Parts: sequence; C-alpha cells; structure tokens
Amino acid sequence: MSLETLIDDNRRVIEADPVKAKAVFSVQGDLVGLTEVDLHARGHAVKVDEPPSLGGEDRGANPVEHALIALASCQAITYRFWAAKLGIELDELEITAEGDLDVRGFFGFDDSVRSGFTSIRLKVTPSGPEAAERYQELADAVDAHCPVLDLFTNPTPVERQIAVPA
Amino acid sequence: MSLETLIDDNRRVIEADPVKAKAVFSVQGDLVGLTEVDLHARGHAVKVDEPPSLGGEDRGANPVEHALIALASCQAITYRFWAAKLGIELDELEITAEGDLDVRGFFGFDDSVRSGFTSIRLKVTPSGPEAAERYQELADAVDAHCPVLDLFTNPTPVERQIAVPA
Repeated sequence: MSLETLIDDNRRVIEADPVKAKAVFSVQGDLVGLTEVDLHARGHAVKVDEPPSLGGEDRGANPVEHALIALASCQAITYRFWAAKLGIELDELEITAEGDLDVRGFFGFDDSVRSGFTSIRLKVTPSGPEAAERYQELADAVDAHCPVLDLFTNPTPVERQIAVPA
Repeated sequence: MSLETLIDDNRRVIEADPVKAKAVFSVQGDLVGLTEVDLHARGHAVKVDEPPSLGGEDRGANPVEHALIALASCQAITYRFWAAKLGIELDELEITAEGDLDVRGFFGFDDSVRSGFTSIRLKVTPSGPEAAERYQELADAVDAHCPVLDLFTNPTPVERQIAVPA
C-alpha cells in the first residue's frame, strides 16, 4: 500500500469515528546493571547504557542519545509522509541531530542549570529531482507536523506514580 | 569506580574548570527504506521503523517509542545516581512509560491538534531495604534532575538547517 493510500484510508476512518485517531504507545524497562537498562516497546528490545565516563559499560547508546535518535528518525519519517502528501519526490534523506548539555544540572552541582539539553541543532539533507523551493516547502510542513519535534519544543504534561516498597 | 567516587571526581574537575561541564551529544541517520531509518550514536547502531499500520515493516521501535525509551531509561539511571548521592540503597527498579498521541496532528487532518504526545504517564517501582519515605525523597530528587524528564516538560530551542539540493 502506498503512503498516499494509507493517508487517505486513515482520513476516511478518522472522519467517520474521531476516537480512532487516539493512539497509546508504551514501553517497559528494568535497571539490570549499574547504569544498564533493558527496555521493550511491543516486540522490540532496546538496551540503554552509559559510557564508562558516566559509570556504565557502554552496552548501548545513552538516554539523551536515544532522545536525539527519536528526534532524527521522526523528522526523517515525517519527511517521507509529507513528501507523499504534497506530491514531492524524495529520493534520499540524511540527518544529524546534536544537543548541548551541561552536566552540572544532572549531578545537582548547580540547580540554576537545567538538567536537559539547552539547545539542539538539526541538519537535514533531502535529495531528489525537485526544485529547491519544493524541499523548503516540505521542510516547513514537516516541522509543523513532526511529533518528536513538537515534544522537544513544547512542554508535555507528565504524570508520575511511584510504587514504593510496602 | 563507585558512582559516589565518580560524582566527587566530576565535582572536583568541574569546580576547577566549569567549561568541563559542557557536553555535546550527536546522532546521524539515513532514511534507508519507506519508513526505515538507520542511526548511529558513537559506535551504537539503532534501527527505527514504523509498524505496517503506519507504512513500515516494523524493523524497530518507532520514533515516539524511542522518545519513551529515552525517558524511561533516563529516569532509571537518574535513580541509580541519586540513590548513590543520597546514600539510599536501591536493589531493583522497574519502570513503564505510556504516552497518548492523536494522529490527526501528524497527518495534518486537524491543525488544532498537537502532533506530539498530549500526556505521559510514568510508573516507577524502586525496591530495596529502605523505608518508603526514603524512596519518595529519592523520587523527588530524580524528578528535579532527570535530563530527559526536563526535555519532556520544558521547551527546548531547536535550530534547523536544511541543505536543499542545488
């Protein structure tokens, strides 16, 4: 099935019953080493760890690298969908995502420093036979509709429940 | 090296030269299939894809699942570090992260709907020999210092550069 057909089918289903637009995603994780975490998302196992400089054994990319992986991959896939939607031919796409972090926040050495990224730089290189203006139009549509870019640039409410030992 | 020693060593180095607190993380990615993306973070390769319902072949967790993987693993590792910092014994930790998403935002069917998660639920189950109050104290310290929780709950500036074909 082409993405154009998939988008049209989704539109029809959701217009008939808007509740069908609502999706829930979930992951489960266990701390299995000093900083090693085994996680599952549906059938997919992912291992996260820290490098030795942060106490780990480097058995996987670390959490903030996974956040960048989420952003870069979401951009790439949103380019693919919106290229189909806008009728723009997209042959290839390369992307890099880079984030600055000041570890004084995480370690609690200075609570005026935020613990997360202070800034992110994205570099996207789409290629194909279209005029430059069309890829610029595509980039603007992507940035207005990319779920993980929205997560990075806007606040999201997080409810937390701690099940402490009895 | 224990985490207590690692934290103390970092404090000493950063107090002597605050520039050493600044870290840059980066990832590179390529769209290698319809929705399949191959990414690298240092030496770690990660594959991201969509399930067939979203046009892919399900060769990996999808981007928003990776965002939840980043959050859940960052929480787990921040529990480990802050348990060491606060002298709280932590034997095990399980975590689930769940997010609600309305796909009308991503597909552009309704631009009043945000494209990212509208809400997130975290359930954390620490275990060990300490009194419940100490795990509660730990949870509060973690939530004040977890880099990916900060990313989710606060806006982060993202600079974008598009290298369009010449």
